[in-house]
Amino acid sequence: MTIEASRQEQGAERIRLGMVGGGQGAFIGAVHRIASRIDDQYELVAGALSSDPQRARASALELGIAPDRAYGSFEEMAKAEAARPDGIEAVAIVTPNHMHAPAAKAFLEAGIHVICDKPLTLNVEEAKELVDLVDKTGKIFAVTHNYTGYPMIRQARAMVEKGELGEIRLVQAEYPQDWLTERAESTGSKQAEWRTDPKRSGAGGCIGDIGTHAYNLACFVTGLELHELLAQLTTFVEGRQLDDDVQILMRFKGGARGMLWASQVAVGKENGLKLRVYGTKGGLEWTQADPNYLWFTRFGEPKQLLTRGGAGAWPQAARVTRVPAGHPEGYLEGFANIYAEAARAIQAARKGEKPDDDVIFPTVRDGLAGMQFIEAAVASSRAGNQWTKVG
Amino acid sequence: MTIEASRQEQGAERIRLGMVGGGQGAFIGAVHRIASRIDDQYELVAGALSSDPQRARASALELGIAPDRAYGSFEEMAKAEAARPDGIEAVAIVTPNHMHAPAAKAFLEAGIHVICDKPLTLNVEEAKELVDLVDKTGKIFAVTHNYTGYPMIRQARAMVEKGELGEIRLVQAEYPQDWLTERAESTGSKQAEWRTDPKRSGAGGCIGDIGTHAYNLACFVTGLELHELLAQLTTFVEGRQLDDDVQILMRFKGGARGMLWASQVAVGKENGLKLRVYGTKGGLEWTQADPNYLWFTRFGEPKQLLTRGGAGAWPQAARVTRVPAGHPEGYLEGFANIYAEAARAIQAARKGEKPDDDVIFPTVRDGLAGMQFIEAAVASSRAGNQWTKVG
Amino acid sequence: MTIEASRQEQGAERIRLGMVGGGQGAFIGAVHRIASRIDDQYELVAGALSSDPQRARASALELGIAPDRAYGSFEEMAKAEAARPDGIEAVAIVTPNHMHAPAAKAFLEAGIHVICDKPLTLNVEEAKELVDLVDKTGKIFAVTHNYTGYPMIRQARAMVEKGELGEIRLVQAEYPQDWLTERAESTGSKQAEWRTDPKRSGAGGCIGDIGTHAYNLACFVTGLELHELLAQLTTFVEGRQLDDDVQILMRFKGGARGMLWASQVAVGKENGLKLRVYGTKGGLEWTQADPNYLWFTRFGEPKQLLTRGGAGAWPQAARVTRVPAGHPEGYLEGFANIYAEAARAIQAARKGEKPDDDVIFPTVRDGLAGMQFIEAAVASSRAGNQWTKVG
Amino acid sequence: MTIEASRQEQGAERIRLGMVGGGQGAFIGAVHRIASRIDDQYELVAGALSSDPQRARASALELGIAPDRAYGSFEEMAKAEAARPDGIEAVAIVTPNHMHAPAAKAFLEAGIHVICDKPLTLNVEEAKELVDLVDKTGKIFAVTHNYTGYPMIRQARAMVEKGELGEIRLVQAEYPQDWLTERAESTGSKQAEWRTDPKRSGAGGCIGDIGTHAYNLACFVTGLELHELLAQLTTFVEGRQLDDDVQILMRFKGGARGMLWASQVAVGKENGLKLRVYGTKGGLEWTQADPNYLWFTRFGEPKQLLTRGGAGAWPQAARVTRVPAGHPEGYLEGFANIYAEAARAIQAARKGEKPDDDVIFPTVRDGLAGMQFIEAAVASSRAGNQWTKVG
Repeated sequence: MTIEASRQEQGAERIRLGMVGGGQGAFIGAVHRIASRIDDQYELVAGALSSDPQRARASALELGIAPDRAYGSFEEMAKAEAARPDGIEAVAIVTPNHMHAPAAKAFLEAGIHVICDKPLTLNVEEAKELVDLVDKTGKIFAVTHNYTGYPMIRQARAMVEKGELGEIRLVQAEYPQDWLTERAESTGSKQAEWRTDPKRSGAGGCIGDIGTHAYNLACFVTGLELHELLAQLTTFVEGRQLDDDVQILMRFKGGARGMLWASQVAVGKENGLKLRVYGTKGGLEWTQADPNYLWFTRFGEPKQLLTRGGAGAWPQAARVTRVPAGHPEGYLEGFANIYAEAARAIQAARKGEKPDDDVIFPTVRDGLAGMQFIEAAVASSRAGNQWTKVG
Repeated sequence: MTIEASRQEQGAERIRLGMVGGGQGAFIGAVHRIASRIDDQYELVAGALSSDPQRARASALELGIAPDRAYGSFEEMAKAEAARPDGIEAVAIVTPNHMHAPAAKAFLEAGIHVICDKPLTLNVEEAKELVDLVDKTGKIFAVTHNYTGYPMIRQARAMVEKGELGEIRLVQAEYPQDWLTERAESTGSKQAEWRTDPKRSGAGGCIGDIGTHAYNLACFVTGLELHELLAQLTTFVEGRQLDDDVQILMRFKGGARGMLWASQVAVGKENGLKLRVYGTKGGLEWTQADPNYLWFTRFGEPKQLLTRGGAGAWPQAARVTRVPAGHPEGYLEGFANIYAEAARAIQAARKGEKPDDDVIFPTVRDGLAGMQFIEAAVASSRAGNQWTKVG
Repeated sequence: MTIEASRQEQGAERIRLGMVGGGQGAFIGAVHRIASRIDDQYELVAGALSSDPQRARASALELGIAPDRAYGSFEEMAKAEAARPDGIEAVAIVTPNHMHAPAAKAFLEAGIHVICDKPLTLNVEEAKELVDLVDKTGKIFAVTHNYTGYPMIRQARAMVEKGELGEIRLVQAEYPQDWLTERAESTGSKQAEWRTDPKRSGAGGCIGDIGTHAYNLACFVTGLELHELLAQLTTFVEGRQLDDDVQILMRFKGGARGMLWASQVAVGKENGLKLRVYGTKGGLEWTQADPNYLWFTRFGEPKQLLTRGGAGAWPQAARVTRVPAGHPEGYLEGFANIYAEAARAIQAARKGEKPDDDVIFPTVRDGLAGMQFIEAAVASSRAGNQWTKVG
Repeated sequence: MTIEASRQEQGAERIRLGMVGGGQGAFIGAVHRIASRIDDQYELVAGALSSDPQRARASALELGIAPDRAYGSFEEMAKAEAARPDGIEAVAIVTPNHMHAPAAKAFLEAGIHVICDKPLTLNVEEAKELVDLVDKTGKIFAVTHNYTGYPMIRQARAMVEKGELGEIRLVQAEYPQDWLTERAESTGSKQAEWRTDPKRSGAGGCIGDIGTHAYNLACFVTGLELHELLAQLTTFVEGRQLDDDVQILMRFKGGARGMLWASQVAVGKENGLKLRVYGTKGGLEWTQADPNYLWFTRFGEPKQLLTRGGAGAWPQAARVTRVPAGHPEGYLEGFANIYAEAARAIQAARKGEKPDDDVIFPTVRDGLAGMQFIEAAVASSRAGNQWTKVG
């Protein structure tokens, strides 16, 4: 056990943050707010927290946002904040998917950095527009593929990069849940409603909500690019409008192969995201529910259980670690690491600089890659499970 | 914990057993012999333990087989034993795959029951001939898909059958190993040599050696029949003649879907056979390396860890259990359960009876199903990963 | 999985917080600060962050504390803040142990609520004085026995209280670490230095640093009071001034018995705090490193794995839970729950009210109980391992 | 994974074995019989399987023992077998404890090797007589402290011996069960009846039945000798005659310290035997319910999970291993290793030789040590938990 101080606090002036979505009754908004507070790098000062103006204002007041910065719509907020000398520097977009693109565009165009939930947009076209706009405006754009923030995932990535696994052959990714085993969207679950509604979620249900997380994580850790996929999307629950189970075969550039399974009807699984990677020299295994552990085996040697903060932790893990080994960190800390990394980039941007090389967070391009993955999977499945190029 | 006597010893006269294959340097022969001894239902009295007559005889003598029953070939043995008044009643065939069919035919035709290793034969044609011959001769024919012998697998099957999981939606089966990560067949491993040699193994490598186990187990537990599959077989190790990694999508009759992954190049996995089944009402999870546990969740209730011999064990598990809960049973006990079940069938046959309904073991038809699975997988893969009917 | 919003944000005005200790190079100060921020109930506005005035001020500036509230000593800070109209309402004391009592006294006497690290003081006498002072001043006094903040520990306590375990018979508590396996106090570890120095830590080393956590947790969950103990304290590392291993037998009022083991030399253990409780009807098991799980068995029934946020979670767990089941929470969230509960008490006090009954946090009396435990253990060990009354 | 043939079959003539106890309704007799068969080194040819002559004979016939060797008493059997030219060479004694000594004496005096269940006798005095008799007769005497037969326990012992852990400081042993949580001895459990009856079990209940196993295992692995102990034995269940919970502090010669907990009332524990050993350089952890794994950590390095048969397995484990890594072995295989090792000693004795150095099994002296442990624990507890010398 190493006992050391948090590496997160840095003393820089807090970033003025706004939020779109995440008002009363929402789930992920509170997660973003906690994540933004953990390292004291942000201050939430403005919000358009609901598409319902009244609820938006009420939610803002509850959170201690000043009345004049409790906006009824994101358009209003983008405009007003851009005009203030103390206007927000960054905005967190935590709405259902269909609002991501319009909101992101509004803030980018207003010169405000964006932290946006995933999947990035409703479709690839929208995603490409965002990429172009980010390129044009030069603003920071982080996508909260939050699982990339876990320290042992950072370590896994570093180990692959250093060649500890040799050449990668196999990537097994899965993300089973069970919360949509029954037709929750018909029994009052607000979360289930919009996630199974193509108008608000896009063409993918399970594939968009969690399949894309598993895919993003697989690419993040291995550094591989997906060449083509073959997908079978299933809707098991009668009357549901979108897929609730996803089975995919993957061929990566360079020859690695993989499988991806995501499901919302796997009874007994809560958030069972798991990644396994095998190369010519070694293998890795990581499970989101127990994120402080990373299994590593060199071929022909005993298995090692690497622990966050413990012996065997690499600097890439240590720099996003807050407490000593054996004191578990969890989902919120991993999420906070995305915010912390984005903060470093924003602080650099304040000075007109690039962030340091070790600053890593999913960008608008990763968001686009996620949309291309979703689109290819939906297309492959509709075409009778044909191999389909990605991107 | 219940402390109770073994349920296996029965006092009936031991079955006179012969063995084909399994001599010096072999692996699985010793496993079969231990399995046959555990419940004291068999006595090994004859053997043709190698295709090399000299080694065959030497091996037999080492095992205490009488010199006049230490045969140089299985043909000789079938003939001689059939002619003896105290001739063998059953034979265990534990050779490489290509010898299964000829040996099985010889003994069936000689009126001798057969316990045969898997995969059943080199191809579907041979397997069908064996099915016909078993039907014609009326002999007992057990195939050692040994994982079906584990008590908690028996329980899983019983739970599915009773409807504890509701209607099955998803079947996730996997069997990763790592022992062929490098080209062991070129560096003196006898086991690796014949398992990667199409002449001795048939058209499938990994798919035949372990993929077929995973498939058999999935069907055994769920009672489902596979309708069609889509397979991607890969040979990762250069110069290898057969597949060393298998990725399969499955569609079962009735609408359930599944994935199957088997690999011999997944570094860090030893014999990672795992089965997960999800239905409308519940989910199950079982791992071969920790076989005394069965995870079960009813939708909306806490997860249960059912233990072999413990509270929550069903009669179907208890009847193949030998020691109290918390005292682990393993691979050999599971294997022995196949032998014990076959013994019950053979003892019934002695009296011209059928075995009791609760006697369960994989038969020649399960062996045929395995061959059809292998053949379909190889065909699907060669056809560019097309959906292919099974059987 | 239930997806629901955080239950922590409440919209009340933030509590103005000061901090004593926790400056550059310290460990636990950063933990307290993160914990205070997670639910947005506190604002850190003043600090005396080191016993070295210069370092104290530098540390405060780094944290964004206004220069006029960056104090050189806690005495100065207590006095100045008490005099300000916007003075701090509460102070977090995160110094080495020997400073707890004097600092706590200064702030209580200044009318400021206290959140103090454990062990409470250097000895029982000091602790009793604090209890008296808290009684006299009526101020809130929370002790950060942070493990009581974990949701599944809240659930365990509730289950015992409801009688789910029947009458408690056995309490097995342990807290092994390995970071003092070698003489780290001689090789530059600041943390090791003060923790092995009787002047700064008091009469107990391992017993005071982690034994007292295990003891507190055992009492918190079971509701039992310790009657007497028999302790064997050992110093394994040559030259060390305090114990680095603790073995204790415990007799609770009412007849339950227990064992407690704490160690700083158990190679391979990071922060291995574990609690197991067995009653006439059921048993519980919880491990700090995997805090989102609680094992529960009713006698004669299958084991259940209860998960934070999952089916089987009780309201007492749910009210301190922030994210859905399967998304792990960790050490910082548990720690934050102590802060959140104290915030509720302080917010009630603002209105001259008592907090709601469901608000639970370790108080100055728990801190005293910890000191009595340490003192009894040291006395028992010195007396040749005699049964010694506690309290 | 290494795939290799069993190391157990050796081709020597089978040892003629008799059995005392273990008839109908008994538990451990069947275990001994399976253990004796697994490696084909023994043939059960005679038995006095019950203290009830009629049941003894009926049980023998059921097991296929010839009628003239189905004895009504062990005295009769010892005499008759000693007189036969094909008389038994060894006897397995599997009765309740009070019959161990008289039976063992009878067979030793008849020149027959003994394999005896534990605890060795009713008291130390009887045990010493057996030691003397073994010395005098020169017969092999194995005690089935069967947990010493597990391969990873053999490895743990070898690792300690080679100094991989440095100097041992701490030994934590535990063996919790829950089967006597209620008063099973009053509701028809034959196993519970004799195990809670001082006339048949001796002065110790839980301490004798399972505490002694934990103690034996701790000494076997560490090679340490116990100097003194301090015990608290408790009877939690009203009306029970013997202890059902055991808490012990231990001081080993050389300075290591330890704790031992055994319980029969720990709800949820089946056979929770666990051993943890910590030294100046490394730590080990092993759990009986998952016996194919051994956790090992070198101080300052990542944890290793060593697997039976896997990379990192030592020759001392490999020589008692039958199946490849990832194919679990269990309780019966470990038990069989005691029989296999005793067989090697008996085979050597046939030739008037000593067994090879690598042959290891618990002897009559280990049995005596177990009795001395029980006696010291009972004495310490009765004396008010005083430190008590052992042996």
